Amino acid sequence: MKPGNKVKRIEGVLSPVITPFRKDYAPDAGRFVRHCRWLLKSGCAGLAVFGTNSEANSMSVAEKRALLEALVAGGVPAASLMPGTGHSALSDSIEMTRAAVELGCAGVLMLPPFYYKGVSDEGLYRSFAEVIERVGDERLQLYLYHIPPVSQVPITLGLIEKLLAKYPGIVAGAKDSSGDWSNTKAMLEAFAKDGFDVFAGSEAFLLDNMRHGGKGCITATGNINPGPIANVYRNWRSAEADKLQAGISTTRKIVQKQPMIPALKASVAHFGNDPQWRTCRPPLVELSAAQEETLLTELKAAGFSMPGLAS
Amino acid sequence: MKPGNKVKRIEGVLSPVITPFRKDYAPDAGRFVRHCRWLLKSGCAGLAVFGTNSEANSMSVAEKRALLEALVAGGVPAASLMPGTGHSALSDSIEMTRAAVELGCAGVLMLPPFYYKGVSDEGLYRSFAEVIERVGDERLQLYLYHIPPVSQVPITLGLIEKLLAKYPGIVAGAKDSSGDWSNTKAMLEAFAKDGFDVFAGSEAFLLDNMRHGGKGCITATGNINPGPIANVYRNWRSAEADKLQAGISTTRKIVQKQPMIPALKASVAHFGNDPQWRTCRPPLVELSAAQEETLLTELKAAGFSMPGLAS
Repeated sequence: MKPGNKVKRIEGVLSPVITPFRKDYAPDAGRFVRHCRWLLKSGCAGLAVFGTNSEANSMSVAEKRALLEALVAGGVPAASLMPGTGHSALSDSIEMTRAAVELGCAGVLMLPPFYYKGVSDEGLYRSFAEVIERVGDERLQLYLYHIPPVSQVPITLGLIEKLLAKYPGIVAGAKDSSGDWSNTKAMLEAFAKDGFDVFAGSEAFLLDNMRHGGKGCITATGNINPGPIANVYRNWRSAEADKLQAGISTTRKIVQKQPMIPALKASVAHFGNDPQWRTCRPPLVELSAAQEETLLTELKAAGFSMPGLAS
Repeated sequence: MKPGNKVKRIEGVLSPVITPFRKDYAPDAGRFVRHCRWLLKSGCAGLAVFGTNSEANSMSVAEKRALLEALVAGGVPAASLMPGTGHSALSDSIEMTRAAVELGCAGVLMLPPFYYKGVSDEGLYRSFAEVIERVGDERLQLYLYHIPPVSQVPITLGLIEKLLAKYPGIVAGAKDSSGDWSNTKAMLEAFAKDGFDVFAGSEAFLLDNMRHGGKGCITATGNINPGPIANVYRNWRSAEADKLQAGISTTRKIVQKQPMIPALKASVAHFGNDPQWRTCRPPLVELSAAQEETLLTELKAAGFSMPGLAS
């Protein structure tokens, strides 16, 4: 392992940043940098760029490296970044993880290889271990990304235990997007005491996660509602916490009635007065006119806004 | 579309070629070329390199392009090649498809983007259409790869109909690895008359497929048993056909008791006297000693051999 000083770990609310595309589906670095700066200004402690909500797996490694470099060049601190670096191809995961570490990112959020289903924990262990060994850099802080509804490949407690035993300090935590609080709770009970930082995959579990030793959440709606969600994080010990949590859950419920990623993009397009944001890269498609009208009508009725977004 | 002459379409038995890796998990071009030459010599009409059995999605586009170029440089005719070129990333699918067409490959076998689940046919249509338009070359012959047990993203009859209407001649056929004969039959009934070439995803359906207007099969066990499977293809109209089909099904049943990909690799390692073939890239793992012993004992008891493999 190449020696190096680790960046301070991120705690709080992270946004899995949506990725803007041009009409020809090329990633749009300018809009991406502007949205990231708005998110940090609006309460996000960090940016989990290249997550599921980012359409990350619809982009090549080269496209993602270019976006990551544009962020740092555009003044977004690398210490605020936790890019997704897990691919189905081992070699892609190694290349992307190495690029993130060399740029000084605070961490990486890594999917398991997701093409083959029903693979063994031994195979997944080898996959993560091979990335860690090949990157070979003590600065690496790796967060495991458990999202079985999409990846169909789970990160089991047994796998975490084995990785943590072999790579303490490098295996830094997890994002649990199972939607199953009992799984998040089991992760916390088993590993939080060992410095394993657990992030809930939705703000719906933010308070529960904090009350059981978690470190925050990485949530889709962090893209559009970062201020109020960060406010719950900051005040989770207060008497007001449950009331604040109820407030952010209202927004969540409105948004998740629609397909999530195009709904986030439609919200940014509307409240930021920037229609090009609606474009999704295939295989995703934008909301229908009717879906978008329902979304925006309900958000406005709930008093939702995105302060400072429109330029 | 750039004008160009299409290569003659492949019909018969294709092998989704297993990929050899070195101890450090790097793809091994030398062993790959040798295995491909043996397959063509032994009865395969074509080579569906970079399929599911090839661990293709565990490799980067750059690694696959290098292997494809090594094949052509090593004397494997491009006209015998139908590489897999579908990735979760649109840009990767475009790059790999373009590379295959420019090398003169007979066709490409394309997975749908497979990270997001439950996507719409409209989104999948846009994805395939975008690849076709970006490659923009009349030489392209695209075969749709339907393998819902692994990809979890189906190619529906409605999607085929829409693509075939817009891109006749370019959309050339499909491989059906659903394992559901009624689906293959429905594809044949709906589209075979329009020059849509259907390949069964397993030799178990080879005779049925031929009897209903299909063009052959692309089958895992084609890696180790190409001669007898090609013999069924050549004699499908003969009185012996059902007996020949029963013979190849015996081998299939022995192999598929074990995890398929490591079982194919163990067979090549054993019968080719080349132990390095056992290596799988993570997340796949090689067979246990007990699994391999069962496999080899049963294959030998059935009189199985791989003529001409050991050098």
